Amino acid sequence: AGSASIQKVTMIPGDGIGPEISQAVKDIFEAAGAPIIWEDVDVTPIKGPDGNFHLPQAIFDSMAETKMGLKGPLATPIGKGHKSLNLALRKAFSLYANVRPCKSIEGYKTPYDEVDLVTIRENTEGEYSGIEHTIVDGVVQSIKLITETASRRVAEYAFKFARDNNRSTVTAVHKANIMRMSDGLFLKCCREVASKNKDIKFTEHYLDTVCLNMVQDPTQFDVLVMPNLYGDILSDLCAGLIGGLGVTPSGNIGEDGAIFESVHGTAPDIAGQDKANPTALLLSAVMMLRHMQLGEYGDRIEKAALDTIREGEVLTGDLGGEATCSAFTKEICRRIQS
Amino acid sequence: AGSASIQKVTMIPGDGIGPEISQAVKDIFEAAGAPIIWEDVDVTPIKGPDGNFHLPQAIFDSMAETKMGLKGPLATPIGKGHKSLNLALRKAFSLYANVRPCKSIEGYKTPYDEVDLVTIRENTEGEYSGIEHTIVDGVVQSIKLITETASRRVAEYAFKFARDNNRSTVTAVHKANIMRMSDGLFLKCCREVASKNKDIKFTEHYLDTVCLNMVQDPTQFDVLVMPNLYGDILSDLCAGLIGGLGVTPSGNIGEDGAIFESVHGTAPDIAGQDKANPTALLLSAVMMLRHMQLGEYGDRIEKAALDTIREGEVLTGDLGGEATCSAFTKEICRRIQS
Ligand SMILES: CC(C)[C@H](C(=O)O)[C@@H](O)C(=O)O
Ligand SMILES: CC(C)[C@H](C(=O)O)[C@@H](O)C(=O)O
Repeated sequence: AGSASIQKVTMIPGDGIGPEISQAVKDIFEAAGAPIIWEDVDVTPIKGPDGNFHLPQAIFDSMAETKMGLKGPLATPIGKGHKSLNLALRKAFSLYANVRPCKSIEGYKTPYDEVDLVTIRENTEGEYSGIEHTIVDGVVQSIKLITETASRRVAEYAFKFARDNNRSTVTAVHKANIMRMSDGLFLKCCREVASKNKDIKFTEHYLDTVCLNMVQDPTQFDVLVMPNLYGDILSDLCAGLIGGLGVTPSGNIGEDGAIFESVHGTAPDIAGQDKANPTALLLSAVMMLRHMQLGEYGDRIEKAALDTIREGEVLTGDLGGEATCSAFTKEICRRIQS
Repeated sequence: AGSASIQKVTMIPGDGIGPEISQAVKDIFEAAGAPIIWEDVDVTPIKGPDGNFHLPQAIFDSMAETKMGLKGPLATPIGKGHKSLNLALRKAFSLYANVRPCKSIEGYKTPYDEVDLVTIRENTEGEYSGIEHTIVDGVVQSIKLITETASRRVAEYAFKFARDNNRSTVTAVHKANIMRMSDGLFLKCCREVASKNKDIKFTEHYLDTVCLNMVQDPTQFDVLVMPNLYGDILSDLCAGLIGGLGVTPSGNIGEDGAIFESVHGTAPDIAGQDKANPTALLLSAVMMLRHMQLGEYGDRIEKAALDTIREGEVLTGDLGGEATCSAFTKEICRRIQS
């Protein structure tokens, strides 16, 4: 270490507790000597001449340079014209694969031990197409859009991810018994990609069956790949198994950049009170380091964070303790440096 | 008891283990003196003059008379033209609400105790519309269809069910943050119906959040109402919490009739070997008795079945024992009669 050249990363601190947990990550990165400098960017939408709200130019400029972002929680502005900013970012940078590892944290409250799986979600289309119509009064349709390009791309990513991370199996999750054409196309792409990646085992299951089996024995799963909405559902279910969104990281991977993010809310009730838990954002930052081939820093930071949680003496409120965010952060820094 | 007039019920024994578990239910009903006579109907599809497969006339005739069906598992015939027979029946008789109670069985293997909730699923439209198109090669759309009529009807049923069953809360489960128009319409109907049923508490949550909270603490939920696909997913998740599809009943309610069914598979590997577990079909039949205002018979049968499982001495293989289906059935009959 020490010899790696310094890389710039775009930081979107986010709303509510976002600034506090982003600062915690910066402090911990500094303690670990991670060769990262941050460029903070505010993504509050700006009203354009057409009356619509747009992401500010600054985020495009910054991402064009860094190709790497870390993002805290964003509040969705209230009002009809606004869509989720989280989704806007995924779309703006074609972040086609949403990767959410779920690994039991030793010593942390959960009925489930030894969970160690990863959901990989198609992140650009499906039920999230945004195409909806009223046909006649009281009759509405929403369109689920599945393309061969996006399905193949995320399937390929899933197999590459499995290989790069020494994982043995990729499971396609679908409802092709009901949505024969759309989920059928997704499944066909997965099968084709599987046939070219024979070193990784491939299985396929219905989403409902996976949910049932998941709560009965999550250890049977490894890497799971699926259309957008199914990933939204299954990743939250899996997060629940290991303690919730406060401890689960997430990465949005694109062809030309990636944004890692905590997927919990902005927690406005405790914002600004130094009570927030930075773990999810920190573990997302660890994923980012690994993605940047800086895994040695990631490993040290992760170990210090998990040791702190396992030890259980300096924990924030939602982790079951009474420590402030800064005290928890300091404890992690201390472990990194000792 | 004894004075109730005898009612005819349509029995669709089903495929695989279907005939065995249907016979078990008949034997147990007889032991309980339930005032039911059965009309067995085979629903194997028949090829019509147009080359398409149709449900046989016999099921329409029988249901027109009885308005009440009990159904074992059905295999979906292999081949392109066939859709799920289960779905065909729901459609043919406009069975608009799919009701699946999930209640922990004392003494039965599961990490979760004290689960006691009911999922109510819109059963006729949504993602199950069957409308799909290829737009251009490699680009497919499936249509999720939501109507005010079907949404209001299932919401009304959910509140009525809650009231009739002394339950306090109905929760609408949705993704109206993403599918603003379709899930938005469903949610609007739920809110309107809620405002006319103020004796029952109403809450609304995102599906992903419900899944996360469900695995962390299912006891916080009561009656949940939701569009078709979400019900498919959530009901299986909940079944997983209490031991799987072998012990979970289901009812499909229509304006002019109802069909109760076990939702597990046909288990071809053990079919005809007297090894099947009839519990899911039996508990579905108990739901049916309650729906027919014959709850006193239902209560006695349910108690005998649950006592048998709790006692744990005469259980089929999947319930953790070594007994045959007939021995398990006999034990339930013995308890009813003693
Ligand atoms: C915030 C919301 C739009 C988002 C989603 O539905 O994808 C969230 O639930 C997630 O999982 O990232
Ligand atoms: C058999 C299948 C078509 C069905 C469904 O998807 O509804 C099943 O999973 C169910 O829950 O009844």
